Amino acid sequence: MGCSSFEVVKTSGGARLGIFHTPHGDFRTPAFMPVATRASVKGITPKELEECGVEIIVANTYHLYLRPGVEVIESASGLHRFMGWKGPILTDSGGFQAYSLSELKEVTEEGIRFKSHLDGSEHLFTPEKVVEIQARLGSDIAMVLDLFFPYPTPKVDARVSVERTVRWAERSREVRADNQVLFAIVQGGTYVDLREECARRLVDLDFDGYAVGGLGIGEAKRVTEEIVIATVANLPSDRIRYLMGIGYPEDIVGAVGLGIDLFDCVLPTRNGRTGTGFTSKGKVMIRNARYRKDDSPLDPECDCEVCRNFSRAYLRHLFLSGEMLGPRALTYHNLYHFAHLMKRIQKAIEEDRFLEFKQNFIKEE
Amino acid sequence: MGCSSFEVVKTSGGARLGIFHTPHGDFRTPAFMPVATRASVKGITPKELEECGVEIIVANTYHLYLRPGVEVIESASGLHRFMGWKGPILTDSGGFQAYSLSELKEVTEEGIRFKSHLDGSEHLFTPEKVVEIQARLGSDIAMVLDLFFPYPTPKVDARVSVERTVRWAERSREVRADNQVLFAIVQGGTYVDLREECARRLVDLDFDGYAVGGLGIGEAKRVTEEIVIATVANLPSDRIRYLMGIGYPEDIVGAVGLGIDLFDCVLPTRNGRTGTGFTSKGKVMIRNARYRKDDSPLDPECDCEVCRNFSRAYLRHLFLSGEMLGPRALTYHNLYHFAHLMKRIQKAIEEDRFLEFKQNFIKEE
Repeated sequence: MGCSSFEVVKTSGGARLGIFHTPHGDFRTPAFMPVATRASVKGITPKELEECGVEIIVANTYHLYLRPGVEVIESASGLHRFMGWKGPILTDSGGFQAYSLSELKEVTEEGIRFKSHLDGSEHLFTPEKVVEIQARLGSDIAMVLDLFFPYPTPKVDARVSVERTVRWAERSREVRADNQVLFAIVQGGTYVDLREECARRLVDLDFDGYAVGGLGIGEAKRVTEEIVIATVANLPSDRIRYLMGIGYPEDIVGAVGLGIDLFDCVLPTRNGRTGTGFTSKGKVMIRNARYRKDDSPLDPECDCEVCRNFSRAYLRHLFLSGEMLGPRALTYHNLYHFAHLMKRIQKAIEEDRFLEFKQNFIKEE
Repeated sequence: MGCSSFEVVKTSGGARLGIFHTPHGDFRTPAFMPVATRASVKGITPKELEECGVEIIVANTYHLYLRPGVEVIESASGLHRFMGWKGPILTDSGGFQAYSLSELKEVTEEGIRFKSHLDGSEHLFTPEKVVEIQARLGSDIAMVLDLFFPYPTPKVDARVSVERTVRWAERSREVRADNQVLFAIVQGGTYVDLREECARRLVDLDFDGYAVGGLGIGEAKRVTEEIVIATVANLPSDRIRYLMGIGYPEDIVGAVGLGIDLFDCVLPTRNGRTGTGFTSKGKVMIRNARYRKDDSPLDPECDCEVCRNFSRAYLRHLFLSGEMLGPRALTYHNLYHFAHLMKRIQKAIEEDRFLEFKQNFIKEE
């Protein structure tokens, strides 16, 4: 370990421009990962992800382990070939899903025992097993199994999550696969001291990257920010930093300014499916009656395939008629919008005008 | 009228190779029209329709009239611009839907009075109004309002449908729009004499094309064939012939051999959505457990985007996981398969080997 393939190329106003090398190519940071939970970014082909400017996606260990099953993906020579995506893939450890989706049986020092949400079958995720599964899935970046509790977490529980997460990270590190990097996850609820301690102890173990987990689950934005600042201050500058599950464009821009390099969130895909488009002028709820005869594109400043071909009136019609093309089109646009945002951020850092970019961004959106 | 823009280029074994000119370009026949009922071929973009080799699509007057409403499509300068499809569009008259989907109020000589299946509002479709709506939608080919009854139809009812359909066709003809051709629809149930009479009377009125309607609704294939033969024998050879709502690849090949030029059917799209792929070796039910680890493409002989990028195992996984990409992918493949079938038919006629093609086709599938 310690051979992280991440380079920081430039910094500007707290933000970092970087490049991460993987066996399936590089991705530039700050990067946003669309969510391909079940080996598919809902409604979108790998070719379209490329068109949108997506460079890395995130898939989910819990879901893929249960269906189609690791052996199915293994027999296709791994996740990349199985789903037809040639670029980098990060797999989330699935601890969160085992904990939240399933009928939880028991969390012990050994791991998380849970019942499948699909068929009720019983399974055990240990830190070792979760790393092994991800190695078999063949993702480029694996995440350790972590533990956290819903917000608000009493400090005594947050302490438990830190202790267990650190010990599990240590066990994960022992079984780390070749040809796959492993990221640790900092926990500690909303307690700055616990977050600092967790970060330091994980850094002592030496991982290829560090994630900040358990945020964006109900706490105030000010708190999220405080925790990110405290955590980042205790992470090495030569390793990538991943803020899990966040978020809105303004949150991403804010966190980039705090030194975060990597993001994932269901927002562009989920909101696209339900009829919300992210645009240069804020959110557009496409079902709104005001768009009934609106011949203009979803975002007049966007040059994606959807904005070049479909009007708001047509997109609205698709949603009101329950036509599959509606969710597909809005998802596509949103993915393009998020990828384009990351490119604009990267450019601003490259040209050392990130603070200016950030200020204009907050004003515009 | 009488200025049909259809040319028969070549014939072979009963089949005709033709070309139909419209204000939005030509399409070659025999042609298959994917169904874009609500101004969208479910899940598929206009650009992809082109990729698949689709040259003409069919939309539905009843559905578009109710939602988004004619004035919405008019304000986008018509259906082509509204949905982003640049090629020819045929609109079905919507009589069938007014009759079958809605809470029917009354059929009189005046027209069909019905309640919207969306909001219960009351509407009247007269032959004149249906032509006017289609002119406002801006489709290239309009269909007359016709009337038919479910299978089996007693002869007395079939007689009523013939009389009314002919009188309605006459009224439609009077209000036919410029820049839009109008096709009549032959009815008459399963009665050869009624079909012959209906065809002759419609031909006397002189339309730009003739459809055979009210088939494929439960009657035996032998009966369908008999009716098609009797009808075609009474249609002029210089006008296009459209067999409505049919069908399976083998039905299409068969009907082409009887002199039919144009087809539409929900099969490639509907079956695609529910997990059935049409392939060179017959139908593939993609959910079948036998495909669990099947790394081969849906159709090894197909070179569509889906067959070049996705395995059966992956497609199966998408369907079992309820991932939108599954229906989208199978629909795409099926549309490609049907368009490719039409191209093979066209080529066989061009090379005067249609009978041989037909025999091999029946053996293979």
